[in-house]
Amino acid sequence: MFGLVNRELKQVEAAMLDSIDTEIAELREASVHLVRGGGKRMRPAFALLSARLFMERIDSVIPMATALELIHMATLVHDDVIDDSVLRRGRTTVKATWGNRVSVYAGNYILARAMALTAQYQRQELVEILALASMDMCVGEFRQMESGFNPEQGLKDYLRRIQRKTALLISISCKLGAMLSPATAQQIKTVERYGHCLGMAFQITDDVLDYVADEKTLGKPTGSDIRQGLITLPALYALEHSPERGQLRAWMSSPELTRQHAEEIIDGVIDSGGIDYSLELSEKYALRARKLLEKLPPGEARDSLARITDFVVHRSF
Amino acid sequence: MFGLVNRELKQVEAAMLDSIDTEIAELREASVHLVRGGGKRMRPAFALLSARLFMERIDSVIPMATALELIHMATLVHDDVIDDSVLRRGRTTVKATWGNRVSVYAGNYILARAMALTAQYQRQELVEILALASMDMCVGEFRQMESGFNPEQGLKDYLRRIQRKTALLISISCKLGAMLSPATAQQIKTVERYGHCLGMAFQITDDVLDYVADEKTLGKPTGSDIRQGLITLPALYALEHSPERGQLRAWMSSPELTRQHAEEIIDGVIDSGGIDYSLELSEKYALRARKLLEKLPPGEARDSLARITDFVVHRSF
Repeated sequence: MFGLVNRELKQVEAAMLDSIDTEIAELREASVHLVRGGGKRMRPAFALLSARLFMERIDSVIPMATALELIHMATLVHDDVIDDSVLRRGRTTVKATWGNRVSVYAGNYILARAMALTAQYQRQELVEILALASMDMCVGEFRQMESGFNPEQGLKDYLRRIQRKTALLISISCKLGAMLSPATAQQIKTVERYGHCLGMAFQITDDVLDYVADEKTLGKPTGSDIRQGLITLPALYALEHSPERGQLRAWMSSPELTRQHAEEIIDGVIDSGGIDYSLELSEKYALRARKLLEKLPPGEARDSLARITDFVVHRSF
Repeated sequence: MFGLVNRELKQVEAAMLDSIDTEIAELREASVHLVRGGGKRMRPAFALLSARLFMERIDSVIPMATALELIHMATLVHDDVIDDSVLRRGRTTVKATWGNRVSVYAGNYILARAMALTAQYQRQELVEILALASMDMCVGEFRQMESGFNPEQGLKDYLRRIQRKTALLISISCKLGAMLSPATAQQIKTVERYGHCLGMAFQITDDVLDYVADEKTLGKPTGSDIRQGLITLPALYALEHSPERGQLRAWMSSPELTRQHAEEIIDGVIDSGGIDYSLELSEKYALRARKLLEKLPPGEARDSLARITDFVVHRSF
């Protein structure tokens, strides 16, 4: 999918492994486990492709792309501490294998490395963008916490939440990539907005998949979100439009949700049309993303980004 | 004790509260709890005084001094997650009141803010120094983890451990303060080494206090370290020199240490002369610190640092 920047992505992979090469066996093993856990490397790919829109040689973007993925990994390892997750992407988590202590410090170590990589560019605004985004992502985690088992939230709360949870880091990946290229301020802004829309479409689709994909595709049980009290867009829709919304509201408010009731919520959400509604909104964001791309220089990078945009909303259906 | 920079320290205090002023009530309350928890503000004071050695007006050092204390606070709140501590400095911890989730994210939030404050100076080497120190502090935590309940460690392991745990951040506080002043490269190096020696003396004294001070002075029970498997200098000495070293070794290796055996270890360590030995080493570091000060410009700042050096090794005796 990221064919155009495959060579650079391999270098990011190597740079990530380099970044976590420490004399401390546990830290190294936990970090290697994290890196090998894979993931789509979306953030590095977006940084690289965004730079590639404006220049041919993008080797200079590799440290930045590496830092972005390290930040993403650090948030994952910290999330696992908190959620007490045992599996992520179908593999055991660092937390499950090495415990809280290793997870917290490995996350901090990786975050600090990301900052050090970014400082190398000698441009304070890059560090500032990353630091402020990290803070905002923390705020997002708090918002998500507050919204758990709380059906009294609206579409706006949901959108703000996923903006901080997902769209923000994708958006600044695009922005930072462009900032390392000869892009104009206006172009950087457009790339950033593209990343925002793409990220929103991505997370909404993710939230839908949690209801309808099978366990193997997800790497975790279907309906994990609702079981954890996470009320995402399909459920919010059902809370407004399902004939059983009273019952759904009661179940969704209960941290002691039974397995049986969780299944019934999932069925109720699907029956309400919440899935279709969510997919439409995701498609709208993708459409805006594609419109923004049209303002950017044509070429292979733009074509890649267009293909990725389509893929993001249509994956696994 | 830090009289000369009292005015600036008050501004650091205000800047810390400013830094954590967020719309998220839980994050704000937890952070305010942390800031109000106090502590000696040693790191900001060292940064300010180190700059003051070389210039009169040190307002420009305030953001850096604030960042240093924020980093220190972030490590404390993360440590509490891991140690499951209920009390710190005699107050309940964030972890005990707000739980793991708030503690991890509050720590990350505060760390990111520290990086953003540092980026403001537009000097990449400042961010790099902080980021690399953060990484090294994480490595130190891993080393401390490995050394738990392990009597097979030597003086060198201990010294490296406390270097990362304490001396490093004090040392770079001094260094960064001097870097924001007109100090020469040689002077910056001297200030950094002063901070290292002072930090080592400080931590060794701290480790001694854990054996001999009362609960009220410590804000935690006497002998906390050994109960947690933390073998510090007095115990290391006892493991070499006590007539009961075989028994001590067996007890110190056991994560199921009973209260009774912990008391006996404490008595055994005190009887072995481990306290006196440790205080002598602490005094040696303090002496080196004072020697280094002599190379620096005379004046009120140097006098303050000399007084602090004396205080650090003689406090609470």
